[in-house]
Amino acid sequence: MNARFSVDFCDGGSVSAADRGFTYGDGLFETLRVVDGVVPLWARHAARLLDGCARLQLQPPALAAVRDEILRLCTGLPDAVARVTLSRGVGERGYALPQRQHPTLVTSAAPLALDPVATHDGLAVRVCTTRLAVQPALAGLKHLNRLEQVLARAEWSDAAIGEGLMCDMEGNLACATAANLFAVIDGELVTPPVDRCGVAGVARAEVMAVRPVAVASFTVADLLRASEVFLTSAVRGILPVRALGARTWQPGPVARALQAHWASLGLPLPNRAKDPDR
Amino acid sequence: MNARFSVDFCDGGSVSAADRGFTYGDGLFETLRVVDGVVPLWARHAARLLDGCARLQLQPPALAAVRDEILRLCTGLPDAVARVTLSRGVGERGYALPQRQHPTLVTSAAPLALDPVATHDGLAVRVCTTRLAVQPALAGLKHLNRLEQVLARAEWSDAAIGEGLMCDMEGNLACATAANLFAVIDGELVTPPVDRCGVAGVARAEVMAVRPVAVASFTVADLLRASEVFLTSAVRGILPVRALGARTWQPGPVARALQAHWASLGLPLPNRAKDPDR
Repeated sequence: MNARFSVDFCDGGSVSAADRGFTYGDGLFETLRVVDGVVPLWARHAARLLDGCARLQLQPPALAAVRDEILRLCTGLPDAVARVTLSRGVGERGYALPQRQHPTLVTSAAPLALDPVATHDGLAVRVCTTRLAVQPALAGLKHLNRLEQVLARAEWSDAAIGEGLMCDMEGNLACATAANLFAVIDGELVTPPVDRCGVAGVARAEVMAVRPVAVASFTVADLLRASEVFLTSAVRGILPVRALGARTWQPGPVARALQAHWASLGLPLPNRAKDPDR
Repeated sequence: MNARFSVDFCDGGSVSAADRGFTYGDGLFETLRVVDGVVPLWARHAARLLDGCARLQLQPPALAAVRDEILRLCTGLPDAVARVTLSRGVGERGYALPQRQHPTLVTSAAPLALDPVATHDGLAVRVCTTRLAVQPALAGLKHLNRLEQVLARAEWSDAAIGEGLMCDMEGNLACATAANLFAVIDGELVTPPVDRCGVAGVARAEVMAVRPVAVASFTVADLLRASEVFLTSAVRGILPVRALGARTWQPGPVARALQAHWASLGLPLPNRAKDPDR
């Protein structure tokens, strides 16, 4: 990955070894798609970051400066993925909040090459055995405590599997390891709640703003009788699910309509690969 | 804090901003007490670190080299606290494990000045409203995902409160924010299990090796009728609990016997402060 870094309060793409982001995962992040000098979903990213700061008692950064830094790092990149990491900064030993917080802000960017097959034909997914713990105090946040996702993603190495679905401790589907989950069940578009576990995805919020969506818990058995299943990601967009085990789907009308909406936002779909074998 | 740092694969007390310890909390740590060039509980710290590496699929470090580095950093310090942080190292974007892992090992040390009042008279504690999520895949590990403890510790700033007790999502007591919990209830020494949440503390393991201990769930109501309550920490030792709200205790015989055992291990109790007001 040809990554470019910018770190406030630090030099050379590094952070202090005493940074609470490193010692406790004490912070938040955003992963954003930047197209030709624009972050089309910026307002949603900014709103989630501010909400996370309030919930974690983190001092919020100057958002305009964050966006400027993202755009500076993406100069010359027609399509890029940026990450903004905000940690509570260097702290003394112990969990207590520092009396004066000096948050660390890290911005990085790299060229983005989306997988056209995932967008156009869809992904095969699996169900992970690692489940998400129920923790309302952290649910919805895109925080830096991501070991559950790391363990879930470590469950498979088969490149034919594009994502892993995760259930919560009660056996309901919650999300994919790095995307939100939507399904059309009994004719209704549904997505799992994010107030007990999971991340309140920026792409999820955009879908909910433009389509009627029921927020409801459902199981793998419910999913198998869905007429359409797709994942959402601020970076990867709308990804139809084409297979879960032996069950297969075609990309459906809701996913296709949302992909068209994505393109209209300034988030173009990747061009279908010109593969002579296809 | 007059901290000394040593960072493998990095310079100057810093880690890469792309280190998975910083981006995902993907790693483990140990906090150790070092007395006159000896780490009396080293074997237990080393065993827990190896167990954590196996469970998180982390490449274990060379333990002898880790201990040597701890002792080097503590040279000249009669009593010190060291921290060893092992992360999965720099990774590309995404949760998937790097194909070749280059773990980051950070060792730090600082002089230790234990609070004699906490050891001799005991601590006042409170019950935190932040609860611990049930996550068997991570329970027991001293991993870098510590936002629950950060939120719990942020609940109070009253310096008269020495620790906060945390319940799990089912309402059973689990631990303190940075120590394990023991109580003598109905004449039996009990400690909560650590297979669904909490940390398998090194001091907890030492207590269980030298005393009969029942591992059992109990509530705050059960705790209030305990004849004796104390906390354990590899760094702070055996800390009697002297008050929870209006309920008060005297340091009891089990805590006193364990403190004597601690001293016999080479972990001396802090000298009682010579305070004329006391």
